[in-house]
Amino acid sequence: MKKIKIFNDPVYGFITVPQGILTELIDHRFFQRLRRISQLSLTNYVYPGANHTRFHHALGALHLTMLAVDTLRNKGIEITDTEAEGLYIAILLHDIGHGPFSHTLEHTILPVHHEALSLLFMENLNEEFNGKLEIAIQIFKGSHPKHFLHQLVSSQLDMDRMDYLNRDSFFTGVIEGVIGYDRILKMLSVVNNELVVEEKGIYSIEKFLIARRLMYWQVYLHKTVLAAELMLIKVIERVRYLYENGVDELQNSNLKYFFENKKEFYKENQKKILENFAMLDDFDIFGLLKLWTKSEDRILSLLSKSLLERKLYKLEYFNNPIQSDLLKKVSLNLQTKQNIPPEDLPYMMITGEQSNQIYSKEEDEIKVLFKTGEVKNVSECFDYEIFSKNVKKYYLCFQKNNY
Amino acid sequence: MKKIKIFNDPVYGFITVPQGILTELIDHRFFQRLRRISQLSLTNYVYPGANHTRFHHALGALHLTMLAVDTLRNKGIEITDTEAEGLYIAILLHDIGHGPFSHTLEHTILPVHHEALSLLFMENLNEEFNGKLEIAIQIFKGSHPKHFLHQLVSSQLDMDRMDYLNRDSFFTGVIEGVIGYDRILKMLSVVNNELVVEEKGIYSIEKFLIARRLMYWQVYLHKTVLAAELMLIKVIERVRYLYENGVDELQNSNLKYFFENKKEFYKENQKKILENFAMLDDFDIFGLLKLWTKSEDRILSLLSKSLLERKLYKLEYFNNPIQSDLLKKVSLNLQTKQNIPPEDLPYMMITGEQSNQIYSKEEDEIKVLFKTGEVKNVSECFDYEIFSKNVKKYYLCFQKNNY
Amino acid sequence: MKKIKIFNDPVYGFITVPQGILTELIDHRFFQRLRRISQLSLTNYVYPGANHTRFHHALGALHLTMLAVDTLRNKGIEITDTEAEGLYIAILLHDIGHGPFSHTLEHTILPVHHEALSLLFMENLNEEFNGKLEIAIQIFKGSHPKHFLHQLVSSQLDMDRMDYLNRDSFFTGVIEGVIGYDRILKMLSVVNNELVVEEKGIYSIEKFLIARRLMYWQVYLHKTVLAAELMLIKVIERVRYLYENGVDELQNSNLKYFFENKKEFYKENQKKILENFAMLDDFDIFGLLKLWTKSEDRILSLLSKSLLERKLYKLEYFNNPIQSDLLKKVSLNLQTKQNIPPEDLPYMMITGEQSNQIYSKEEDEIKVLFKTGEVKNVSECFDYEIFSKNVKKYYLCFQKNNY
Amino acid sequence: MKKIKIFNDPVYGFITVPQGILTELIDHRFFQRLRRISQLSLTNYVYPGANHTRFHHALGALHLTMLAVDTLRNKGIEITDTEAEGLYIAILLHDIGHGPFSHTLEHTILPVHHEALSLLFMENLNEEFNGKLEIAIQIFKGSHPKHFLHQLVSSQLDMDRMDYLNRDSFFTGVIEGVIGYDRILKMLSVVNNELVVEEKGIYSIEKFLIARRLMYWQVYLHKTVLAAELMLIKVIERVRYLYENGVDELQNSNLKYFFENKKEFYKENQKKILENFAMLDDFDIFGLLKLWTKSEDRILSLLSKSLLERKLYKLEYFNNPIQSDLLKKVSLNLQTKQNIPPEDLPYMMITGEQSNQIYSKEEDEIKVLFKTGEVKNVSECFDYEIFSKNVKKYYLCFQKNNY
Repeated sequence: MKKIKIFNDPVYGFITVPQGILTELIDHRFFQRLRRISQLSLTNYVYPGANHTRFHHALGALHLTMLAVDTLRNKGIEITDTEAEGLYIAILLHDIGHGPFSHTLEHTILPVHHEALSLLFMENLNEEFNGKLEIAIQIFKGSHPKHFLHQLVSSQLDMDRMDYLNRDSFFTGVIEGVIGYDRILKMLSVVNNELVVEEKGIYSIEKFLIARRLMYWQVYLHKTVLAAELMLIKVIERVRYLYENGVDELQNSNLKYFFENKKEFYKENQKKILENFAMLDDFDIFGLLKLWTKSEDRILSLLSKSLLERKLYKLEYFNNPIQSDLLKKVSLNLQTKQNIPPEDLPYMMITGEQSNQIYSKEEDEIKVLFKTGEVKNVSECFDYEIFSKNVKKYYLCFQKNNY
Repeated sequence: MKKIKIFNDPVYGFITVPQGILTELIDHRFFQRLRRISQLSLTNYVYPGANHTRFHHALGALHLTMLAVDTLRNKGIEITDTEAEGLYIAILLHDIGHGPFSHTLEHTILPVHHEALSLLFMENLNEEFNGKLEIAIQIFKGSHPKHFLHQLVSSQLDMDRMDYLNRDSFFTGVIEGVIGYDRILKMLSVVNNELVVEEKGIYSIEKFLIARRLMYWQVYLHKTVLAAELMLIKVIERVRYLYENGVDELQNSNLKYFFENKKEFYKENQKKILENFAMLDDFDIFGLLKLWTKSEDRILSLLSKSLLERKLYKLEYFNNPIQSDLLKKVSLNLQTKQNIPPEDLPYMMITGEQSNQIYSKEEDEIKVLFKTGEVKNVSECFDYEIFSKNVKKYYLCFQKNNY
Repeated sequence: MKKIKIFNDPVYGFITVPQGILTELIDHRFFQRLRRISQLSLTNYVYPGANHTRFHHALGALHLTMLAVDTLRNKGIEITDTEAEGLYIAILLHDIGHGPFSHTLEHTILPVHHEALSLLFMENLNEEFNGKLEIAIQIFKGSHPKHFLHQLVSSQLDMDRMDYLNRDSFFTGVIEGVIGYDRILKMLSVVNNELVVEEKGIYSIEKFLIARRLMYWQVYLHKTVLAAELMLIKVIERVRYLYENGVDELQNSNLKYFFENKKEFYKENQKKILENFAMLDDFDIFGLLKLWTKSEDRILSLLSKSLLERKLYKLEYFNNPIQSDLLKKVSLNLQTKQNIPPEDLPYMMITGEQSNQIYSKEEDEIKVLFKTGEVKNVSECFDYEIFSKNVKKYYLCFQKNNY
Repeated sequence: MKKIKIFNDPVYGFITVPQGILTELIDHRFFQRLRRISQLSLTNYVYPGANHTRFHHALGALHLTMLAVDTLRNKGIEITDTEAEGLYIAILLHDIGHGPFSHTLEHTILPVHHEALSLLFMENLNEEFNGKLEIAIQIFKGSHPKHFLHQLVSSQLDMDRMDYLNRDSFFTGVIEGVIGYDRILKMLSVVNNELVVEEKGIYSIEKFLIARRLMYWQVYLHKTVLAAELMLIKVIERVRYLYENGVDELQNSNLKYFFENKKEFYKENQKKILENFAMLDDFDIFGLLKLWTKSEDRILSLLSKSLLERKLYKLEYFNNPIQSDLLKKVSLNLQTKQNIPPEDLPYMMITGEQSNQIYSKEEDEIKVLFKTGEVKNVSECFDYEIFSKNVKKYYLCFQKNNY
């Protein structure tokens, strides 16, 4: 009798994982750590239900991938048990490189993309598990001959996106993000080593793309969420600035490691990076945040206290680059009314831009399989033209006399 | 135009709160802190979706209370605007006295019930808000003449239970806890100053009671959840033991306060207690847990590391008191195989009992209003007798060579 | 590439059926006819969403059976492809013998239980499909050596009940009937040729039994639903009475067949019975009902009009046999105020009893498999005693001056 | 104590209607008749869950309208109790003029739009209820001075659409139609006597428009659904043709009325039209359909049998007008292989076009209210241009040797 492990999931009901390498990886402290990394960073400041974690997302993406493999095999697509296992490991670990507060602090703690770290984790685990992750790594990197396996892990229609839209929509309660994932899964097939969607699934794909777009503006780039996340980045930047100027506020040796070793990186010291990084999660940062509210540095304590008590900066989006008049007015105000010295203004007033492209024709396109056997790019299948447009917005975010 | 604040809630859709004292209280740092206190402590170690917070629960209970007030007023029950506001404040703040990991550490950090602390918070806020919480406090304490208002906040059919069953069931994905709360709410009425349920709602009440029972055994007292929570208690107890023996592992001044001031309590130093307590939440404890994995005390580091990496103790329930033979065998095993000295055994092997009474006839009973006008206790309305039975189980929980 | 047919189902998302004998049976006019037989008869007079059909229920039960087979096979239980196909056919056709308004008119149109008719349909189809239903018929009748296959189709934990609880709860909106069917399915196993539930699923079984109980009293035996259904029975009885007394109100030759051939039955004329029966469904009855509103027979027209316009009789339940005083009072009232002659009273005043046994120890019990390998009857696993109790209620249903 | 009537609704939970004119109208036989008119005609041939009725839709639209009124009043918009009642009656009865199979047979039974018939019903009921529907009729017709009340009943953002999208999506299981209706409702306001949506609701409006578009192609204009509905139209047309040629297949006097009185209409005979029309629903048509399977007219019996047994015509959509070559080929095939005489071809081969415009700039636009106080047409608020495009498709539908 094959043993299985069952996880309850309010999104899909149950997630069933066969005992073996997959459950061993799940039990590994590197993976368990994802329980303490929220999927959506500070989004819960706006959507209080959004406390779901990278741990749950990884299991969810695994679940969808298993369903996809079932469908493909039923359609006669060959996927060997070894390939399936590699695929499952790859999707399970695709986000293992995420650190505290996921994307928010992604480049602030160390200047590396989370996928590079995921790969580092995988290679490390591959050693520990005596080479059993070899195929998973190939699939993850895209070097496996069955290209469609990589597409299930990473493409414009991968199981990662499929799960996060479902999950984020579920936990935020933003119904606009609900997608017909089961229909899409049932419509998957493979032609010429490429993942395709059968013609009948085309409206579900349209819905999927639009859902993603709506989630960007309603959730991921929500102005209050963005304000909170910018403040968190500023907190860490301030701590780094203080540290580089001789003031040590880093009451956590694992975090301190990344402030001491900024420059050279990613070579001989990989093991050490990994060990320190693996000890960090959301809990350390917010634990420290409280200590920082008592810092003698006014900027640090102000930022920390504001963030902790949710006295957030105000953020506004603009369709065009922000006029210098406005910037001058705001900075003057901060200097005079709040007595902020010019050199500290960047902590109290932040500008930048955000863009959201619903779908890119430049990347590997989603392919549609017609009953005639013909395969077309999805961009050729719709009667309107919203997909390739990159919507860009400019923002101004500043402290506004909350105290 | 009256201003309102809208909270997204995947459980109820939207929670609408009028701007005013309620939103001011929600914005207060005491209340914002509930964002960092998980509703179900370490239940997410078994049900990974269960990351919802006391913050969200408090809003949910407020929402249900507002619906209940609407229903009652529609039925001609008089509730003045002032009373309604008092009621809303009381339910909003009913759990504000919870600390890190809610019930788990309730008596471990300081020997006081969370409701007493909730009252302390309310009295403090009452001062800060110039007496505006007077009626709320009366309702909360049960001294308000309209007794049914208190029953909405605290009774065997209060809005607290109604929300937590809904919410815990939703986020764990345990469908057995789903209740027909909207039907129950619509059936509420008041007779002789007592909350009653109209006859038509009786099956929903039966379902509500049974759902609560099932949630106890499937979630709240789940053996793995309980094992994790017992370990967390042991961690804090060990830290306290070390502190009392001259080893200070308390790298957090707010927590340290409660170790220094164990004996005398709750009198002149209320303000100080409050200030320190209000700075503590789940994040501090798990932040410290990581530091403790590096402790020189073997018990502390072992416990911390095990808990952090989810290498949990094994827990078994028994219907009868545990036989001394079994206890001897387990303790001997720990002493010989794992080299645990006898005096440290209590950290590695824990016994106790848990009971769950679905409904108590001794407390204020749920009342049913019949079409004839007659009012009966719900315990007289069912044709079977499960309600008053107190189901008791004994547990043994011990470390089992995870390392 | 294996071909599949996909049915949308709001309850389970998608139901996937492989092309072949199953889809051929679904396409057969005997099965298509189930589209026009409502699952819950006149329940939609109380729960307006309850318009789901036997067609959808049969597909749903098939879906659950397929999931159960997957689980069992994953646990190493052998089920050959031929056995699986037989099982699927058996569950698909288990209700094909239902006629207009399902249970309501089950014994009124012809004095045969619907399962006997299902068998008759199956045997007929077996001929048409050249013996391909042989195994299905064995499983349905319980004569197949793998007894657990029969138990999936018909037992106290069969896929029929599992689906109808889910489905009826979904379409009525009565949340009390929601069950954790996916958990139960995942916990199924087989020991000694008997279906068992693993220990971990025990609370889900408890929930399942209680949900069924609550659905009985809240939906299936709801007093207004029962009143409407009794009226429908009385309509047909009146038409039969008139027909036997020379008044032909049967403007439908298929229905008339069953009034002409009341006595001898079920032998040589099976084919004819089947052909006539297969032409009848809810639509014929309600089509005729309108014609009958214009009947010259006062009782028939009154009954038909009342039912059509939902001017329903009043029904009351009593815990004890109804006192003759009350019966006298009501009948007198009907005679004097409404001028009903004594011989017609049975059409205007109906008494009877309904009982609901949540679970029977006399039948084949649900079995629980413990980790130790032990198998127990579920009735021995609970700490309370509600299961075997047969709750009986008496009803009085009468016309109440609606006109 | 105000009395209310509660309807269970799986879509919204409960629908609460105050006792009075609204419940009296609901109890009226004209309204009860909507229980027997399916909302989506033969859509259940493709989506078997889609058996919901006009009755339930009308209640659902009423429910949403009540929520909208609550929101508007909370924002200080004046709606008197009399106006609210008028509005509620108007939305409750907006579809009361629908006949058998709703839109499918809308112009086939009698050449009048269902809204004209709704008005006729309302005027009739107004007489019966002594003028109590006066305001409702004004609101329905758009002649009431508070124009926004009419917009709630009939506009591009009315409660009708809001409910049918929710409801059709729920019962078909097509998740693409799910909309954030509660968010939209909460964002409604009124400026200058016009219904507006607050800026914050703009993404929900986008979602609403797109959901409607997707529902059109996936459900309302689904090719198999359309094929079945075209066949139903052809059945009735054939019956009419036969009747006009002396063959009476109309075993239903109410339906016959509309075949006898084709020409002059809608003047003196309104009462008679109403009475006959009010006796017709889906049940009569499908009851007759079975009788027609035995008709001596080959076309009628073939059509009826095919429709009854779901042997549907094949339908294909084309982006351009269909080439005459194809038409010739199909008609030749029908003539030679199936022996259909040329004059009967129109019953076996149907062409036409369907179009779907997601949103019209020509009609009364949806208005968006910005924080600045500015009001804009929604068509100016999006960064892409799909709304005003009218997508047109051509179809060919023909019998394909099913027998």
